[in-house]
Amino acid sequence: MSNEYLTNLGVRAKAAARELRALGPGERNAILEASAEALLSAAADITRENARDMEKAEASGVKPAFLDRLRLTEARIRDMAEGLRGLSALPDPLGETEGRTLPNGLIISKKRVPIGVAAVIYEARPNVTSDVFGICLKTGNACVLRGGGDAFLTSKIIVELFRAVIEKHGKNPDAVQVVTDLSRESAVALTRLNGLIDVVIPRGGAGLINAVLQNATVPVIETGAGNCHVYVDESADFTMARDIIINAKTQRPSVCNAAETLIIHKGILEKFMPFIAGALMERGVEIRADEAARAACGGLLPASEEDFYKEYNDLIIAVKTAAGLDDAIAHIEKYSTRHSEAIITENYAAAQKFLNEVDSAAVYVNASTRFTDGGCFGLGAEIGISTQKLHARGPMGLREMTTTKYVIYGGGQIRE
Amino acid sequence: MSNEYLTNLGVRAKAAARELRALGPGERNAILEASAEALLSAAADITRENARDMEKAEASGVKPAFLDRLRLTEARIRDMAEGLRGLSALPDPLGETEGRTLPNGLIISKKRVPIGVAAVIYEARPNVTSDVFGICLKTGNACVLRGGGDAFLTSKIIVELFRAVIEKHGKNPDAVQVVTDLSRESAVALTRLNGLIDVVIPRGGAGLINAVLQNATVPVIETGAGNCHVYVDESADFTMARDIIINAKTQRPSVCNAAETLIIHKGILEKFMPFIAGALMERGVEIRADEAARAACGGLLPASEEDFYKEYNDLIIAVKTAAGLDDAIAHIEKYSTRHSEAIITENYAAAQKFLNEVDSAAVYVNASTRFTDGGCFGLGAEIGISTQKLHARGPMGLREMTTTKYVIYGGGQIRE
Repeated sequence: MSNEYLTNLGVRAKAAARELRALGPGERNAILEASAEALLSAAADITRENARDMEKAEASGVKPAFLDRLRLTEARIRDMAEGLRGLSALPDPLGETEGRTLPNGLIISKKRVPIGVAAVIYEARPNVTSDVFGICLKTGNACVLRGGGDAFLTSKIIVELFRAVIEKHGKNPDAVQVVTDLSRESAVALTRLNGLIDVVIPRGGAGLINAVLQNATVPVIETGAGNCHVYVDESADFTMARDIIINAKTQRPSVCNAAETLIIHKGILEKFMPFIAGALMERGVEIRADEAARAACGGLLPASEEDFYKEYNDLIIAVKTAAGLDDAIAHIEKYSTRHSEAIITENYAAAQKFLNEVDSAAVYVNASTRFTDGGCFGLGAEIGISTQKLHARGPMGLREMTTTKYVIYGGGQIRE
Repeated sequence: MSNEYLTNLGVRAKAAARELRALGPGERNAILEASAEALLSAAADITRENARDMEKAEASGVKPAFLDRLRLTEARIRDMAEGLRGLSALPDPLGETEGRTLPNGLIISKKRVPIGVAAVIYEARPNVTSDVFGICLKTGNACVLRGGGDAFLTSKIIVELFRAVIEKHGKNPDAVQVVTDLSRESAVALTRLNGLIDVVIPRGGAGLINAVLQNATVPVIETGAGNCHVYVDESADFTMARDIIINAKTQRPSVCNAAETLIIHKGILEKFMPFIAGALMERGVEIRADEAARAACGGLLPASEEDFYKEYNDLIIAVKTAAGLDDAIAHIEKYSTRHSEAIITENYAAAQKFLNEVDSAAVYVNASTRFTDGGCFGLGAEIGISTQKLHARGPMGLREMTTTKYVIYGGGQIRE
């Protein structure tokens, strides 16, 4: 457990966090703007390092989709810079206070302050390096970034640019650090640096998140696991249901707010199943259905119990037949990762019951689950989508990267 | 890790939580009122079971202070009942919504809802059993209570009373359950029931909290470790400083918001040290001081490095001499558990700097640290004092036992 390298990195992050707490919004925003500038000016250097990462990854035989996530084009670098500028333009999330005077004269208020040091563990998307840095700096937090090894050179040069900008502004560059020891042991040790790191945010697949959860002693925010359901109620408008299901499943199947299971009320199964199956198959979606749904529509693969637990992140959808609304809710209660679920219905009571009883971060009536996103919800930025119930639930914006402290002004009060 | 007993208990708690989500404030308050009534009616049975616990504890040779915490008198049972009635009278923390209409017509709101299932692990104070049940029921959460073995019979009869009340109201009594397997393994297994338990709250000493932190995979809220500091600045009013220090150290030394270390500006050490030492020793406080403070005042014991980390919970105080405000803040940064700290000063700039730079749950100017308490802060009830930064910081009231979910009303919207 004694990892000198990581402890040293944590100590430096904590010292930087102490300095960051003292920066005003003007200083933080100036660093964000200059960081955006630095990305644009160094675009050629970044793409060169990225090409080296790509080469190595390609040689190791990864899938094209993986390579695509890893690739940084000039356009993507411009997006990253735009992201930092957008953060600079957002209202300051810090310093807001709310309080009152107690009968004994104490003036007590809750003040919004940075959390301190955030460690973010992620996989191969290099834009995350820039996004996480930006959100952390905007919220006055130091960050320790542990990206996937495949994007290492890309992340490293991006972080070096940011550190140089911070130094040029006369501030402590340890506000952003990248972990260079990419062993599994180091990842585990990072999540056990209590007293140095205040929160660990794993961004990635269920495997990564679970590994962090099993080992961390620092508080963790679970993000991103999305086994999302769309339930088509007996009274649903078929066309609306079809459009929403197609959107939720196919608009971007690799993301966490895409639908993975379709639940259909048995009363409409005979009519709706062939209708939706045709539309899905037209778009190349593989359907894995339960017995009743297969009986209602030929040519569907069988769904196993396991299928209902799966986050496919692919053009595959599981279909479950529900005896009614209660059965649909019970299915979601059992299999869902509590991310986003939708009901398609024209029945008012069914809509309200679904919203009240389904225990997920976002519950929808007659809309696509794809809207669960910091941008769509108007948060301006997003560091992840929390599927846990403590601290943050659903898309995490700037406010979710802050905490509060009680500030109390007295005049000699003591407790009786 | 496969503990059938606990898994079963978790499954039942989760089912009860699902039913609790559907209860309105009237139903929850009626159960609280009836539970208070039940405690009063069964006072004789409770004290009889408590006497059996006391006998066993006494035979095992525990300290008188421990026995005092374990003892339930009729007056204490009345206090517990009053606590439940007080909860019933508080405003409902659930159901509040906050939202807006997005440009695409989606009506999105954040709704305050119960967390689900809370597991609370505590030591020998039987009133905690009643307090935790009350707060959890008021906030629509099911609770799993694992109290200390010494108070087992007392806790058991209290929970049986509550379960009978819930059943009489036609609701699921598994809203409150007591863990009867009190092995260490069972405590660990309880904190790893992800998917069944939503939050673990350890209430007790540093040993208990640390054991939970090291093993839990369910999110934990750290509570109660309090190494609180009072810093006496160069410009402090000596009389005010003395009164605050005496209050913070001696009014109730066993609690987490009592002061454990006194930091004195070196410019006033010669005069202030003998003044405060006299006042503290008069009240039986042992003083463990650094070199400079001992030179300024005869008869003080030496403080070791270890002393500055200690939460004495006793009539002992450590004294540190600070070269100035920055040195005082650095000392707190290094040794504090981030609970509550106070500065005594007449200097405006020093007060503001202390409030801004000290990173603790509650920071005070010219007041006793003893005020960090849900009751004093006007929360109406308190389930613990969080010393971590996520979800809740400082005294945790009803609101801190809730979470939110996004509720979205659409009309067929899909994402472009």
